[in-house]
Amino acid sequence: MNATPPAPERTDSATSGVSVDHPGVTELFALLAYGEVAAFYRLTDEARMAPNLRGRINMATMAAAEMNHYEVLREALERRGVDVVPAMTKYASPLENYHRLTTPSTWLEALVKTYVGDALAADFYLEIADALPDEVADVVRAVLAETGHSQFVVAEVRAAVTASDRQRHRLALWSRRLLGEAITQAQYVLAERDELVDLLMSSGEGLKQMTEFFDRLQRTHAARMQELGLA
Amino acid sequence: MNATPPAPERTDSATSGVSVDHPGVTELFALLAYGEVAAFYRLTDEARMAPNLRGRINMATMAAAEMNHYEVLREALERRGVDVVPAMTKYASPLENYHRLTTPSTWLEALVKTYVGDALAADFYLEIADALPDEVADVVRAVLAETGHSQFVVAEVRAAVTASDRQRHRLALWSRRLLGEAITQAQYVLAERDELVDLLMSSGEGLKQMTEFFDRLQRTHAARMQELGLA
Repeated sequence: MNATPPAPERTDSATSGVSVDHPGVTELFALLAYGEVAAFYRLTDEARMAPNLRGRINMATMAAAEMNHYEVLREALERRGVDVVPAMTKYASPLENYHRLTTPSTWLEALVKTYVGDALAADFYLEIADALPDEVADVVRAVLAETGHSQFVVAEVRAAVTASDRQRHRLALWSRRLLGEAITQAQYVLAERDELVDLLMSSGEGLKQMTEFFDRLQRTHAARMQELGLA
Repeated sequence: MNATPPAPERTDSATSGVSVDHPGVTELFALLAYGEVAAFYRLTDEARMAPNLRGRINMATMAAAEMNHYEVLREALERRGVDVVPAMTKYASPLENYHRLTTPSTWLEALVKTYVGDALAADFYLEIADALPDEVADVVRAVLAETGHSQFVVAEVRAAVTASDRQRHRLALWSRRLLGEAITQAQYVLAERDELVDLLMSSGEGLKQMTEFFDRLQRTHAARMQELGLA
């Protein structure tokens, strides 16, 4: 996960108006669980492009953190009486599509994808946690608990784009594509899963909130491009 | 790691006669560190053969545990003022050779390799820990701390070999080959690294102990074959 964002203020169940028994909560955990496993295998695949052992170790460390998050989600689903594997299988298609459509062709592209993907996931989790009852929000925040793993990316990407304008333009386009595909797949998931839409809708101001949510994702994405020297 | 073995009695530094500053300790930690990273990538590679998502998740969970062990070793080396990456690189060749020479061709072979490899590593760690000063032994035992991950293998392998004699014979041969290659590479490492040999020698009765060590490895290997239904 990316740099720790400022802790959002806790919204209790009374305020959020969402029950912990909402069926969307199970769907949300299942979606996140598949996301962690998919990220694990994506990171280990992309680590093949690492120019050296240190790079491969960094990727392996991040991948291991994804499985620790998966474990948190698996336990949360178990407490809800849900077997994680069948529950998460329905989210295979959008998540595998995202990774298939954003297969990096260089180590630098892999690094940027790691950083941007992690950051987008963190934004997404925190936005959602904010609107959920405490018990559910705690699980979502625990999945964010291990932070800082992808910081190693910043130094390497900045050095590369400072040395080459061509690299900077290439990677800036690449990072826009990552955001685009992430939003496309997120909207595909929402279109298919009424329980998830209902969860997000009932937790705040509905559609207006959803539009603002995607706007915020784009703003934080822009801030991160700046951080990587890509803006 | 495999089922938790009975805790060996603690041998304190006075008894073991080995100083924590022995240069072999750094070499031992570096060897184990490379072993963890190699095992991580081997498990994620072999997970490609998994027939389903549950199998891939089990392999990913074991792989993540290897990186947690790596972290323990990295910190222990750091406390000794040693940078893990250059220190471990010299052990790449024997460990990569072991994995290259024992590339499974089926999911069942991958499962047996996971189980046998994990168990051999555990035996090796515990034998060594027994002979080391406490401070060093604690690190080695911490690397063994997460146990039970490979238990999922037993049920799947037993079911397969109960159903097919051909599978049983095939996998029994395979597991002998795994032991053989592990011993070959271990002896190669010892032949190349005087500090490690000196560490093992100075910690007990020398050569006699070493021969007994390999004998014990073979005995516990036989017990495990029984467990998997391969004996």
